[in-house]
Amino acid sequence: MPFPSDLEIARNAVLKPIEDIADEMGIGSHLLERYGESVVKIKTEAADELAGERPAKYVVVTAITPTPLGEGKTTTTVGLGQGFGHIGKRAVVAIRQPSMGPTFGIKGGAAGGGYSQVVPMELLNLHLTGDMHAVTAAHNLLAAMLDNHLYQGNELDFDMHNITWRRVLDVNDRALRNIVIGLGSSADGLPRQTGFDITAASEVMATLALARSLADLRAKLGQIVVGYTGDRKPVTAEQLQAAGSMTVLLREAIKPNLLQTLENTPVLVHCGPFGNIATGNSSVVADLIGIRCGDFLITEAGFGADMGAERFFNIKCRASGLKPDVAVLVATVRALKAHSGKYRIVAGKPLPDELLEENPEDVAAGAANLRKQIENVRLHGVAPVVAINAFPTDHPSEHRIIREIAEEMGARAAVSTHFSDGGRGAAELASAVAEAAEQPNDFRFLYPDNASLREKIDTIATLVYGAAGVDYSDNASRQLNTYEGAGFSHLPICMAKTHLSISSNPKLKGAPTGWTLPVREVRASVGAGFVYPICGEMRTMPGLSADPAAAHIDLDADAEIVGLS
Amino acid sequence: MPFPSDLEIARNAVLKPIEDIADEMGIGSHLLERYGESVVKIKTEAADELAGERPAKYVVVTAITPTPLGEGKTTTTVGLGQGFGHIGKRAVVAIRQPSMGPTFGIKGGAAGGGYSQVVPMELLNLHLTGDMHAVTAAHNLLAAMLDNHLYQGNELDFDMHNITWRRVLDVNDRALRNIVIGLGSSADGLPRQTGFDITAASEVMATLALARSLADLRAKLGQIVVGYTGDRKPVTAEQLQAAGSMTVLLREAIKPNLLQTLENTPVLVHCGPFGNIATGNSSVVADLIGIRCGDFLITEAGFGADMGAERFFNIKCRASGLKPDVAVLVATVRALKAHSGKYRIVAGKPLPDELLEENPEDVAAGAANLRKQIENVRLHGVAPVVAINAFPTDHPSEHRIIREIAEEMGARAAVSTHFSDGGRGAAELASAVAEAAEQPNDFRFLYPDNASLREKIDTIATLVYGAAGVDYSDNASRQLNTYEGAGFSHLPICMAKTHLSISSNPKLKGAPTGWTLPVREVRASVGAGFVYPICGEMRTMPGLSADPAAAHIDLDADAEIVGLS
Repeated sequence: MPFPSDLEIARNAVLKPIEDIADEMGIGSHLLERYGESVVKIKTEAADELAGERPAKYVVVTAITPTPLGEGKTTTTVGLGQGFGHIGKRAVVAIRQPSMGPTFGIKGGAAGGGYSQVVPMELLNLHLTGDMHAVTAAHNLLAAMLDNHLYQGNELDFDMHNITWRRVLDVNDRALRNIVIGLGSSADGLPRQTGFDITAASEVMATLALARSLADLRAKLGQIVVGYTGDRKPVTAEQLQAAGSMTVLLREAIKPNLLQTLENTPVLVHCGPFGNIATGNSSVVADLIGIRCGDFLITEAGFGADMGAERFFNIKCRASGLKPDVAVLVATVRALKAHSGKYRIVAGKPLPDELLEENPEDVAAGAANLRKQIENVRLHGVAPVVAINAFPTDHPSEHRIIREIAEEMGARAAVSTHFSDGGRGAAELASAVAEAAEQPNDFRFLYPDNASLREKIDTIATLVYGAAGVDYSDNASRQLNTYEGAGFSHLPICMAKTHLSISSNPKLKGAPTGWTLPVREVRASVGAGFVYPICGEMRTMPGLSADPAAAHIDLDADAEIVGLS
Repeated sequence: MPFPSDLEIARNAVLKPIEDIADEMGIGSHLLERYGESVVKIKTEAADELAGERPAKYVVVTAITPTPLGEGKTTTTVGLGQGFGHIGKRAVVAIRQPSMGPTFGIKGGAAGGGYSQVVPMELLNLHLTGDMHAVTAAHNLLAAMLDNHLYQGNELDFDMHNITWRRVLDVNDRALRNIVIGLGSSADGLPRQTGFDITAASEVMATLALARSLADLRAKLGQIVVGYTGDRKPVTAEQLQAAGSMTVLLREAIKPNLLQTLENTPVLVHCGPFGNIATGNSSVVADLIGIRCGDFLITEAGFGADMGAERFFNIKCRASGLKPDVAVLVATVRALKAHSGKYRIVAGKPLPDELLEENPEDVAAGAANLRKQIENVRLHGVAPVVAINAFPTDHPSEHRIIREIAEEMGARAAVSTHFSDGGRGAAELASAVAEAAEQPNDFRFLYPDNASLREKIDTIATLVYGAAGVDYSDNASRQLNTYEGAGFSHLPICMAKTHLSISSNPKLKGAPTGWTLPVREVRASVGAGFVYPICGEMRTMPGLSADPAAAHIDLDADAEIVGLS
């Protein structure tokens, strides 16, 4: 018997009525809005109504520096949630909504995998309740208001060469990266160069994810900076009179979506800010609700602990006021072997045969990355637990080595077989997390609000990445001066750096030291509430391959979807 | 007491549970999917399950040639639906979903008006259940697949200068009308000129509106022509392997949405194809369901009877197989006065004072348009009823004149005060429609399928518009030859002509004769299933004004929407 496909497993799932799931979370039916047969939205009032409930332990799932294949973080997050059910604890999972661009591009779906999935996976991957589309609409309304303002006479005195607001679409479309608009006749707007990003990369998405309430969202949207005047003064969405309409467009999208795992664990799915240039974390609103609904709230942070988790600690937790108890570091044998520097893993190609042979020495040789990422979690006063995400090609000796390294560093560790075994396979991991969560919470930010933007960047670069220092381009220095002058220096930093190395060079594996972080440009997401230095080529609009997933997705004769996942 | 605003009236509406509305239609709960608190989607299986029910009388609401202000067609449609409740008949209303572009542009909402509205109006005007967004996503995925195909080597041999597929967004954004994409580096696609239309103008929208089922939609999407090869052969969405994914994206959007009027009449809201270049009619699927759910199914066709109703008869009814019984022609005193040629009505400006004075002679002087539009309904073997949509500034003598003209033409007529009085004000109109519906159904198409494209165009121009003939540009002739050669000659015609005159010149009022229809270009919506000749400047992407509605839409302190309508 071959192992069934994700779609086959998902189709055989026995879903509980979603209102029953909400009821088990303590969320009354008056706080629910049904969307189709298996999803409810939860009204934002839920956070206030449940404020008296005992808060759950707050667990973030992060990872060592991944290979281009990813190390199964979402699957581990879902599996861990299911695992708590096997040790008598109530868990709630909170994850991002997948972007449809990659769904039709390379991945064909993103709902976990194997026996650790969010269902219905078709809904999760396609539209869900329309939140992504609402973000697209709000973002592009602001763009239309901006270009209309220029066309009607540019009363706000925009510098036509310093307009930073682009447009967005939730599709992988490389041809839209760089475009010229406003061609045609004098009735067709003013010509200028701009482009489209994928919706996940929209500042509106990041703003929605970091807002605490609808009123907070309204205020933050007004602060979005869309460009600068001739004398380098920021111009905002509020000045363009667009923020009210944008909020109205997002009135439903701010309500988190409730789905479930294959084992009926509640899953809050909400927002999907892009990891490349934004937080890569699901929403604050979902966590403010979920923290009151069980023994453990498990959320996922994109990329490795140097990236998603650092942003989770210093940006998302600043916005939410929540204090994480445990960070789960997902590690795989293949990734640690790759960190030895001996193997090259390329997305879309089979793994090298030698990498699959039993070789605990290579695992040990790649351990520096794991050690550094454990340290990065500790820097924030949070208890680390190493989750060894098991693959059928792994060898027990290799798992043993990872466990030893973790324990040397004083971290708990557990092998997890949630992909093939579901929650049962994550029970040991769940127990380790539960134990770690009993330690006193010593959570702290890496830097204070009132440090300068340069101080914040230097702190992350040296303490988290292990860089010797930071090299700012002239352009970046000028931009930092502009932002300090404009009053943005209180904002936290969201580093836009490769996720494939702890350094800024994707080729450097392990935990390199003695290198310098190049900051070539700095941008500000003032509405969302962070400044993001660009340290390398950051793609904000993916392309399609020669054989995209979209070419194979269709309906079968029973109108069931084929080709997803 | 000033007359309350539409939003105030809508907020005071007492909604019935939407499942009760469905139940009264005979639609079982197993056929419903809830979306939020006041909307259900109806599964497409409903049409088959209800096939044994007695069909409703089928009523299309159309109009005389309108002024730029519109003559209250949607409001009359909704009011008439409510009116049937006052004469003991069960009516179902079927209308288009409003586009968000105009909602944030000029109109601020489109849900009827006064005491004849669809509620909740906020939902109707904003996102609804996401169908428009699904159309946007499917359309733009096809565009991305197309540009990716060019980038990957153009194996299908597209002529780069004969690519007809553009992109769409549901926003008024003139700067996107004409753009150049694919700039940047060699990794960023191939540079070429293209543009964005508003989502309502998408052929995907027209295709969804004309499909009879999901399987039919899948087939039609595959037939969409996106461009031509060097030797003028059409290239389809099927050849680009995009039609399967597009159908998957539209799997929920094909299900009609059920809302209600202020008086709890069921309203099917489904699809919103653009009147300028597409049918301007709501969906076939909604009508196939609605026709089994009451005594009367009332649907609306965009613009005047020469435009929307002609397309309704010859395109939509061809696709659905349904036979209309009655056509309601909405007429207003102000529009008939305008057809006298003595007044100029401009959108956004107050009506001329003289136009508001009692003047039945001017009404009579504009009667030619009403007479011709009654004739246009009769051409299709359908019984006309003139609905005099009453305004507070009208005079009884003016209403009397309209009634006399209608009766001279053998048509029934009724004054309707549904705007100020709700369904009660439309009871007389409902009775007139019910009487007219008792006549034997003599419905017929204007032209047979097997007429040539030129014969079809000539027939519409001369019989419906009253033109002396048609003048084809060289370009149009070449295109017609291409389409005949490609096997598209069996398709019906969707004329893209101004709606502000029965002729092709928006300045000509009444019912002009002796003029020639200029066809400067002909395009083919092969997936949707029609060929559309362009007879004048047809805008497919609106712009925003100097003071757009979006600048005034916001949330108030109670998080209620202000500024809509």
